[in-house]
Order: sequence, then C-alpha cells, then structure tokens
Amino acid sequence: MNEPLSITKSIYRFNQDQFTEIDDEIVIEFPLTVYINDEEFATMVCSPRNLDEMVIGFLASEGVIHFKKEIKNMSVDTDRGFAYVELHSKEVKNQQYFSKRFIGSCCGKSRQFYFQNDVRTAKTSMVKTKLTGSQCIELIKKMQDDSLVFKNTGGVHNAALCSPQELIVSRSDIGRHNALDKLYGYSLLNGISVRDKILVFSGRISSEILTKAAKIGVGIVLSKSAPTDLAINLAEDLNITAVGFIRGGSFNIYSHPERIILN
Amino acid sequence: MNEPLSITKSIYRFNQDQFTEIDDEIVIEFPLTVYINDEEFATMVCSPRNLDEMVIGFLASEGVIHFKKEIKNMSVDTDRGFAYVELHSKEVKNQQYFSKRFIGSCCGKSRQFYFQNDVRTAKTSMVKTKLTGSQCIELIKKMQDDSLVFKNTGGVHNAALCSPQELIVSRSDIGRHNALDKLYGYSLLNGISVRDKILVFSGRISSEILTKAAKIGVGIVLSKSAPTDLAINLAEDLNITAVGFIRGGSFNIYSHPERIILN
Repeated sequence: MNEPLSITKSIYRFNQDQFTEIDDEIVIEFPLTVYINDEEFATMVCSPRNLDEMVIGFLASEGVIHFKKEIKNMSVDTDRGFAYVELHSKEVKNQQYFSKRFIGSCCGKSRQFYFQNDVRTAKTSMVKTKLTGSQCIELIKKMQDDSLVFKNTGGVHNAALCSPQELIVSRSDIGRHNALDKLYGYSLLNGISVRDKILVFSGRISSEILTKAAKIGVGIVLSKSAPTDLAINLAEDLNITAVGFIRGGSFNIYSHPERIILN
Repeated sequence: MNEPLSITKSIYRFNQDQFTEIDDEIVIEFPLTVYINDEEFATMVCSPRNLDEMVIGFLASEGVIHFKKEIKNMSVDTDRGFAYVELHSKEVKNQQYFSKRFIGSCCGKSRQFYFQNDVRTAKTSMVKTKLTGSQCIELIKKMQDDSLVFKNTGGVHNAALCSPQELIVSRSDIGRHNALDKLYGYSLLNGISVRDKILVFSGRISSEILTKAAKIGVGIVLSKSAPTDLAINLAEDLNITAVGFIRGGSFNIYSHPERIILN
C-alpha cells in the first residue's frame, strides 16, 4: 500500500553560472484506464498508490456504484495501467451522462452544476458537526505533518478525512480529485460513515473538489488554499462550510460560517 | 479581451480568536461547453477570458483542426457558457479518439502517450534555438511581472510564448492546460510561427503540459515548478528541453540540456 510517489533521476543543475549533475526527486505520473464490464470508461492520470480505493471512489463519485457490494470483481494491472471492474449488473448506470454538460432550466438560478452526473450524485449536507477556530488550524497541521512526501517533492496534493480532533486517514495524489476519490473509496471499502467527518485538503477548492466533498457527504471542507467563486456558490447551495487560507493562525470562511465557532 | 479573472466577495476572516467580515478577491471558475457541428464535444472549466483562442487552441490540440480556415463559423455565449463551432467539413476529425486510451505495442518501450489524439498531434521538435542560463531566469521574471492577477488572487496559472529575449504574448487561466490552449489559439489566429519560440509556464510540467508544448511546436519549456517523471520521458522522446525550478538565480534541466548554454 506504500508504493513510491516519486523516483530519483539524474538531472543538470544550473547555479552561479555552472552546470552540475545532481540526483533529484521526481514525482511519478501514472495513467490508469478503467474498464467497466469490458468497456473503456475513463483514463485517470494519478499517483500509483491506493489505486483500488481510487477506482471505487471514482465510480461512486460518477454514480456508477453506491456500495462496494455492487462490484463483482476488480483487478488492477499496475504494470500497464489498467483497472478492470466487473459489476453484478450488466448495465453501467449513468454512463451516458459521464462528462456530459448539465443544462439547468433557469440560466444560473438553479444549482450550479455543469456535469449531469454531479446533479445525480452530489447531496445537500445535513451535517450538524461544528468546529472551533483552533480545531480548523490544528487539523490542517495534522494533515501536513502526515504528508512527508509533500515536503520531499512538492508535487502531490494531500487530502484527509478527520474527526474534529483527529486525522482518520490521509491520501496523496498528483491529481487533486484523485486524492479525494481515494478517501471516498477508502470509506466505502471500510464501511466508514463520513457524514460527521471533516475533509481537509492541501489544494485549491475548485468546483470539482467541492462537488466531490458533497458526494462523499462531508459538511465541512478545510484548505490551505482559496476556493473559486463557483465552488463558493455550490457550497452555499449544498449547505457545506468552506474554510480556506488556513495559514499562520488565521483563516477565511467562505460559506455557512455557522459551523465554525469561537474557541 | 480583458474580462475579470476574479470577483470581490464578502467573507468572514478568523484571526486572533475573532471573526470579522472582509472583502476578498475570489478567482472565477467558468464552465464552457464546446459544440462542434451541433454536437456536444467537451466541457472545459476555465477563466472566462480569451475564450475564442482557447476553443481554437483546444480543437487544434485534439487534432480536430490544423488551421483557422477550417472553421466556418464560431460564436461564444459567455452568459450561459457555450461555444458553437461550425466546421467547413461535416466530419469531426479524431472525435472517436477523444480521451480514448492509446495502447502502445511494446509495453512502455514505445512513446509514453496515453491518449490516442496525442499520438496523432504531438510532434517531435526539430527546433535549434538555444538559450543562455541568464535568459531562462530573465524570461520567467518577465512572465511573472506581466501577470499581476497571479499576485492578486494566487489562483491562476500563467503561460507565455517568448523569443529568447522578449515575451510575445501571455495568457492566464485557472486550468493549467487552458492557458496553453489560449497561446496555441492566439498563434493560430494571428499566424505566428511558434517553432522558434519558448514556452514559459508558472505551474508544474505534467505530461499533459509537455504534450501540449509538443503540439504547439516549441522546443524549450521553462517553468517555476518541477516536471513529473512521465513529462520528462515524453520530453526526452519528443526532443524537448524541459527546464524547471527556476528560482532565485538557479534552475534544473531535466531533458535535452544541449539547448541551454553558459552565458
């Protein structure tokens, strides 16, 4: 489960008008193509670790499955970069909508989704969990301490599922959304309820990340970085608290501030 | 041509155990769905600026067009996020390969592409342009100076086409690949030869970025960040010089160092 996220390569370094040959840590980028019931579904470019979790989280995120038990068989060929998923059902749910644009009826007045499968799978949060300001700051710190790889190569995103006090599981990937799919897959594989958990993320909260958070089912998203306007609109709409720019003892709350309380 | 990349929003800031309401700059994320000959082709999430360039660069990058003149008509609906492209040809070239996995015959011994359209459109560089170490450092500085927005919101990637001495055009986008598509579209729309130009980029050199550089036709890619292993393999194979981590007077050369010379 701890396949390397980076490899060592010999490169040339230019410094003070000189070239020297040095060894450098280079982050690995791995294309994985997912087949469902013998048909090509999608190619994901990812870090080659926890691939089973990633595939299951991705399929759940796209509405193809809801539970682990819907998968009859799954194998990952890590040499060639293929994952073969066999479902109990012959029909692949929602396949016709994959990456297809959702066209709302009211020109921006309706939900701000732009992919049809998101409309089907992202849920409005009913979570009542609250966090103190200190807990927000502490959880980001715990995630960063846990992700040594990030410090080594500077090339991967880190995401973690946490309780208000503790980090439960963290995952890394060069693709921001893959890190979240891995967390989603982990929780499905291990039967972990995520409703009362907090999602902690190293990167920007884009609409894609916010939508994934809603699919996973968390009510609070914490990040070191800022959200986009579309992510904020989605967060307001889906009743998710988006907290960003958690740095040096301060942070910003972009939506549903009622879940963040004074210490 | 200078639509805003960010908007001002009222948010809550937590600092020293206090919440205050402040105005913050939030980066805009805009979904644009491209129709070709009345059929949905793809949805891109982007910064809503230079969209005509982005669509044209994207279509060229996917091998749908090679020249501007293949487009009969094009309109962008910036209210609802749709681009309608009508080609002179009834047939949409390479559509069946879009986002389909390319399966090489020799298990990693052949080129490292993983999408079929990349095999069709990425070219081996024949460029003879050379750069001095100082020019590498100077061009990154010019791109950064040019992209004030980056400093404001910290949320967009910047890319520029340069001669060894000068920045020719720079483009910004929240999506790394979109910024390159905009440069590609700009060069196609304005009939600019890119073969002797240098691509300067603010973000990580992923395989997707390296592949786009090969499609655009440049021989040298400069970045503030590091490449992935797959991007380095592609760069070696496509005869592209990848230079990264250009920071504070030093940098790394990851492939084809012969194009970078001492001052």
